[in-house]
Amino acid sequence: MRVTVSVPGKVTLLGEHAVVYGKPALVSAINRRVYITVEGRDDSNIKIFSNDIKLQGLSLKLNGEMSSFEFETWEKKSQILEPLRYILKALEVAAQHYGKKIGANIMVRSEMPIGAGLGTSAAISVGTVAAYSALLGHEMNLNEVARMGHATEVAVQGIASPMDTAITTFGGTLYIKPEGTKPFIERIDVPCDFTSVLGYTQREETTSQILRRVKAAKDQNPKVVELIMDAIGLLVEEARSCIKKGDPKSFGDLMNINHGLLDSLGVSTRALNEMVYASRSAGALGSKLTGAGGGGCMIALCPDRAKEVSLAIKLAGGVPFEVSLSSPGLRVEPPS
Amino acid sequence: MRVTVSVPGKVTLLGEHAVVYGKPALVSAINRRVYITVEGRDDSNIKIFSNDIKLQGLSLKLNGEMSSFEFETWEKKSQILEPLRYILKALEVAAQHYGKKIGANIMVRSEMPIGAGLGTSAAISVGTVAAYSALLGHEMNLNEVARMGHATEVAVQGIASPMDTAITTFGGTLYIKPEGTKPFIERIDVPCDFTSVLGYTQREETTSQILRRVKAAKDQNPKVVELIMDAIGLLVEEARSCIKKGDPKSFGDLMNINHGLLDSLGVSTRALNEMVYASRSAGALGSKLTGAGGGGCMIALCPDRAKEVSLAIKLAGGVPFEVSLSSPGLRVEPPS
Repeated sequence: MRVTVSVPGKVTLLGEHAVVYGKPALVSAINRRVYITVEGRDDSNIKIFSNDIKLQGLSLKLNGEMSSFEFETWEKKSQILEPLRYILKALEVAAQHYGKKIGANIMVRSEMPIGAGLGTSAAISVGTVAAYSALLGHEMNLNEVARMGHATEVAVQGIASPMDTAITTFGGTLYIKPEGTKPFIERIDVPCDFTSVLGYTQREETTSQILRRVKAAKDQNPKVVELIMDAIGLLVEEARSCIKKGDPKSFGDLMNINHGLLDSLGVSTRALNEMVYASRSAGALGSKLTGAGGGGCMIALCPDRAKEVSLAIKLAGGVPFEVSLSSPGLRVEPPS
Repeated sequence: MRVTVSVPGKVTLLGEHAVVYGKPALVSAINRRVYITVEGRDDSNIKIFSNDIKLQGLSLKLNGEMSSFEFETWEKKSQILEPLRYILKALEVAAQHYGKKIGANIMVRSEMPIGAGLGTSAAISVGTVAAYSALLGHEMNLNEVARMGHATEVAVQGIASPMDTAITTFGGTLYIKPEGTKPFIERIDVPCDFTSVLGYTQREETTSQILRRVKAAKDQNPKVVELIMDAIGLLVEEARSCIKKGDPKSFGDLMNINHGLLDSLGVSTRALNEMVYASRSAGALGSKLTGAGGGGCMIALCPDRAKEVSLAIKLAGGVPFEVSLSSPGLRVEPPS
């Protein structure tokens, strides 16, 4: 038996970082996907393949106890190990949930850079859980898959917001407000064209380094940083209305404000700023870094100017790619 | 009789824009000065000379009624007219105050760019009032001079904060909090090295255009922008303590936060951001745009790295100049 599922990447439209401190955020699934194929084996081994840009040449073989690793290439071991941890943990979580474990070949392919703030770790976790569940003979229940995907992220990272696994499972655009252990999630229809261009640049810091730095800034200037978080929370509320009203222009203005506030938290970089400002010069309605910052991605909302903004991002030294928002969530792909 | 006075330029350390909405600001006099010389004439005419970079080739002759202008060069007329308006108005204000008017030659020289947010219009106003008062035979009273300097700015601009004329008259470093018509002003001792480098880039917008834009942003998203203004006000209070404690490191962190908040108000530019981030990479403790924004100047606090930061600003396309803060205010120069 062989099952292929695909899961979208996500982009944080507004509210990253502040969401860690209880403020709402807006996230949207993009039309770049991770494809996970699982295939039964005659033995109880796990073998993982990938021919992704970032995972190129990966071929990992595990024996039934998942205790020994065989890499075909050792060159990119640290880059490879990161996504691997999510795959292995997702298999474990699903196997445990169903009380059943079988051998499998697992193929991973990503249409977007890994570790760029586009939710690829959540997508890999959710996709692996879903495909392996199907291989084990279980119907895919989206709520269950999202929960297991989140459990996978928590197990690997120690702590994880359920935001990424939720958006990647359900797709669309979500307004998410942390409330105790269970966040309030509202699905939002996007009634008009929110075509955007993402610009990618190398990460200079890891997400956990950046999260620590924001925490340190908050400890050093608690009142000032709290006001900044409040401002971000408030602009997310305003932006939610802008989407509902179909007002991308005002939404863009709020993106610009949000970028400055993220800059004030110390999470922007010269390269991100370059792309953000170049996009505005090229006619974007708004632009900001997206995700944790410290490099990674920025997003420019530019329904009528995608070509010009892509060029501007390229000239500013980034890698542009056009995306549609509110893309579908987890789905089973037809057999190839 | 011939009198030469000099007046320092100023830099806003923190709090620009928010000060327009009632928040406190920190300003400091820099060691770049405007020199104004007045010299009695046998007739009642006014003649103004300047050999400044920006005012090069200016030579203006007025008849006793100040009704006709003679320019030696017409090329830079609009650039020349701007500072001229302050000189002429300052003469009028002083003449009216003392009920006396005599002819004079007036020579102006500036050690810093005019119209770059360094308070040159206030310096020219205050310097002209002071020197002309002396020519009229009146002792210079600093409070009176500051008041007349402010009246000059109000008459020319329609509206003016008394901040620039206060700092340029009294020198040093001032904490200024608008309170009704009379601001609360506190002189602050700077107990340690706050050597900074300024970076200058061409203005892309005028101050009044930028002020209108911030006003429009506030009208569009009142609650969000109010929180941003609150955050700026609060960080100015924190920064006042940092200066008093002699803690330039924490002060630098607050400058970085303030820059992001100014960016969120839409007053930064790509060129300013470039210099701001380049300075940080070169070891500045903190950096931000200073003044109205839309081009103009940025400031990097870098007591131990002035050479490196100057180079970084130059490489980022700006014109760097090192300044000391808390410089002396208005003073009479010895006869040359």
